[in-house]
Amino acid sequence: MKRYDQVAQTLTQRIEQGQYRVGDRLPSVRTLCAELGVSVSTVQEAYRRLEEAGLAEARPRSGYYVLPRPTPSLLPKVSRPAQRPLDVSQWDQVLELVARSPDEDRLLMLGRGIPDLAAASLRPLQRQLGTLHRHVAAHGLNYDSLQGSLALRRQVVRLAAKSGCLLHPDDVLITTGCQEALSLALRTLTEPGDVVAVDSPSFYGTMQILKAQKLKALEIPTDPRTGISLEALELALEQWPIKAIQITPTCNNPLGYTMPEARKHALVALAQRFDVAIVEDDIYGDLSFEAPRPRTLKSFDDDGRVLLCSAFSKTLVPGLRVGWMAPGRYRDQALHMKYVSTGASATLPQLAVAEFVQHGHYERHLREMLRQYRRHRDIMIDWVTRYFPAGTGVSFPQGGFLLWLELPGDIDCVRLKEQLASEGLHITPGSLFSASGKFRHCLRLNYAAAMTPTVEAGIKRVGEAVAALLEQEQPA
Amino acid sequence: MKRYDQVAQTLTQRIEQGQYRVGDRLPSVRTLCAELGVSVSTVQEAYRRLEEAGLAEARPRSGYYVLPRPTPSLLPKVSRPAQRPLDVSQWDQVLELVARSPDEDRLLMLGRGIPDLAAASLRPLQRQLGTLHRHVAAHGLNYDSLQGSLALRRQVVRLAAKSGCLLHPDDVLITTGCQEALSLALRTLTEPGDVVAVDSPSFYGTMQILKAQKLKALEIPTDPRTGISLEALELALEQWPIKAIQITPTCNNPLGYTMPEARKHALVALAQRFDVAIVEDDIYGDLSFEAPRPRTLKSFDDDGRVLLCSAFSKTLVPGLRVGWMAPGRYRDQALHMKYVSTGASATLPQLAVAEFVQHGHYERHLREMLRQYRRHRDIMIDWVTRYFPAGTGVSFPQGGFLLWLELPGDIDCVRLKEQLASEGLHITPGSLFSASGKFRHCLRLNYAAAMTPTVEAGIKRVGEAVAALLEQEQPA
Repeated sequence: MKRYDQVAQTLTQRIEQGQYRVGDRLPSVRTLCAELGVSVSTVQEAYRRLEEAGLAEARPRSGYYVLPRPTPSLLPKVSRPAQRPLDVSQWDQVLELVARSPDEDRLLMLGRGIPDLAAASLRPLQRQLGTLHRHVAAHGLNYDSLQGSLALRRQVVRLAAKSGCLLHPDDVLITTGCQEALSLALRTLTEPGDVVAVDSPSFYGTMQILKAQKLKALEIPTDPRTGISLEALELALEQWPIKAIQITPTCNNPLGYTMPEARKHALVALAQRFDVAIVEDDIYGDLSFEAPRPRTLKSFDDDGRVLLCSAFSKTLVPGLRVGWMAPGRYRDQALHMKYVSTGASATLPQLAVAEFVQHGHYERHLREMLRQYRRHRDIMIDWVTRYFPAGTGVSFPQGGFLLWLELPGDIDCVRLKEQLASEGLHITPGSLFSASGKFRHCLRLNYAAAMTPTVEAGIKRVGEAVAALLEQEQPA
Repeated sequence: MKRYDQVAQTLTQRIEQGQYRVGDRLPSVRTLCAELGVSVSTVQEAYRRLEEAGLAEARPRSGYYVLPRPTPSLLPKVSRPAQRPLDVSQWDQVLELVARSPDEDRLLMLGRGIPDLAAASLRPLQRQLGTLHRHVAAHGLNYDSLQGSLALRRQVVRLAAKSGCLLHPDDVLITTGCQEALSLALRTLTEPGDVVAVDSPSFYGTMQILKAQKLKALEIPTDPRTGISLEALELALEQWPIKAIQITPTCNNPLGYTMPEARKHALVALAQRFDVAIVEDDIYGDLSFEAPRPRTLKSFDDDGRVLLCSAFSKTLVPGLRVGWMAPGRYRDQALHMKYVSTGASATLPQLAVAEFVQHGHYERHLREMLRQYRRHRDIMIDWVTRYFPAGTGVSFPQGGFLLWLELPGDIDCVRLKEQLASEGLHITPGSLFSASGKFRHCLRLNYAAAMTPTVEAGIKRVGEAVAALLEQEQPA
């Protein structure tokens, strides 16, 4: 064991034993050098390890502080959806969410899937956008090629290699956000009336694609630690004429799990055995707290049946609408769908993102965001544990910035949402994540942006409102 | 008759009698004042009338010059498509066109539907884009509301009033280009297997939507001066279970006609009688040479059955992908389709276009472009008349920047296109504008950008190639 690892271990033990408590300032580098008889650089390296482990954080010109510990006490239960194909409902609830204009919003938004847009490491992107728009030649205002900018596709290929995918720029199709990628993928694979297997809970954006395409959702039981049940999926594949599997296996939205690699591999093998296509949503994949980031299903795909969909909406900014897909053997049909859907995607955002990635800003920004999101996850779990009634199940996200809560009793989160909205607080009820409005006793929280006292007070207020509803439930 | 109208009439007669010829410099204002005994302002106003009539143009610091006269000698014939529903083909031809990246292009592009992007009156748009992207607050990088920016919807409402439409901002939905609007409209109205009536020739983008949605196209005979035959359409409505009529009645692409107002009114009445919806593509409508611009079908729609689709892609720039639709009574379904298709459209391009319109730059730019496009139309018709074989039918566009040629004999324009591409020239063959590859003896030319000697040489070369093919056709 390296010297700095020993120092890090010592400090970790002291934190675990309660010698330093959450929020405490840890000893200064100088103090520790003297105490442990090690060099400044050793202590600095040890503190870096603590930071990486999410145990401590550096505050500029102040020192290191103990962070709240992740307490994955009570996880949400394994979901038990109806095991038959269902029509998707819930559109009015989703509409209420997406019809909002963020600048009109007077609510404290605790629920939407929006990254931290105030991050300093995003600034080069804004600079590039400004410069490109001001100085671009006429071709920048013209239609781009239908597949998208070659410069951006090259960068996508480079990034995808980190998830184990060997792609060629011709395998990649730039889209208008991940939503378009998912929509093209499902429209390529299915016809009205077809059945699509989905993880459960499942992202409402994809569920609504099923609704619009008149597809039926077959929701598969899903474990909040390991993802979709392969056993249940296999049974379903035997029983129903499933056309496609739609799934978010890495940094799942909303549950936060990452499927273990072996299970991902087994899932692709299952799809091969039943000759069914997989639509893989990897939009949060680059925000995994693991390093290197986990592999995609696509990386196990040796016959082109996985349509990998992603975007820069969660890692960078959503408002540019830059997404991409690697549609495998379905490339030609997907390209046709892309053409009829929106034609070529906007030109300059593609060039700006390509430059941002190429110059290393993307990886720098990711590093910052991962540190921030992991720290925020732990703080948010701490707050929920503190302010919500006992018996509240809490997810333990392996990446991204979304937390899933399963409330005790029979709380109706749609009603809760309405009540809280009138108090200026916004949460996303769990029912949006099911075809038939299940998970009404669950809710999704966002911990991307600064964890201010206002946010803490908001979480506390949500917890109190839940407790009050729970009390009403008790027989008098 | 006003004094300046008399002066304008005198000058017009002299031009028509050949006293001043095409390209000649007209007498200076001072000379005319002296000759005709009128004031400077009268002569200036007379010259403005000549400009508006497309007879003369002002060249800065030089004077007024006689423009080529429109010579709508031989129009293309009224189309006679197959009068039964057909599956749409031709995707590989369209793909070849849209897979191009404009900046890689080494061809002289004579065929694509791209406006003049070098126009000075576009500069404020680039300035605004640059400033917005550089200085925008975080919300500008966020998702916009699903309907689109209220600022832009307000401007759309203002512009739509000029085509006789009374809309409310809530009636308008911002889309990612007109292609998305058309796609949402058709997906809202139809299911696979349904029949859609279209004008013929018809824009290949919409034809490909029909293909992707597995719809059948019923191509209706269309007159190159007055548009779709209402008589043929009525017969078709009686005979076939038509779900929607898809049509571009103003500044038609590719034929350039504008349906007379009475026929537009009659078309809406017909749709009402047969209770069928109309998808109206008005993307070139604001580029009409008439002032005020012609009314839309939508302006005659009193029961919400017209889904009006448009964009700023032809009037401003295509690369921003800012379009819109007014889906009438289908608003809720169209909004759902919009959500599943791409989510909210990109935020900042909407704000930039809204500012551009609001500050009057849009109307200023339109004025410039209309003058330019009308002048270019006449020059292009002149070149085609001069350089193409006798018997070539030429459209007489009432707006926009696209010319349609019907070649004599049995010329195959797909073959012609390939031959010309090898010489560095790009044309769009007519077969793209038909479900079944009709109009193979037709081609579309673009006269938006500067009519340089290179373009003239290109047109001349196309004419020669056509003549050579025609000669080969003659029996030896």
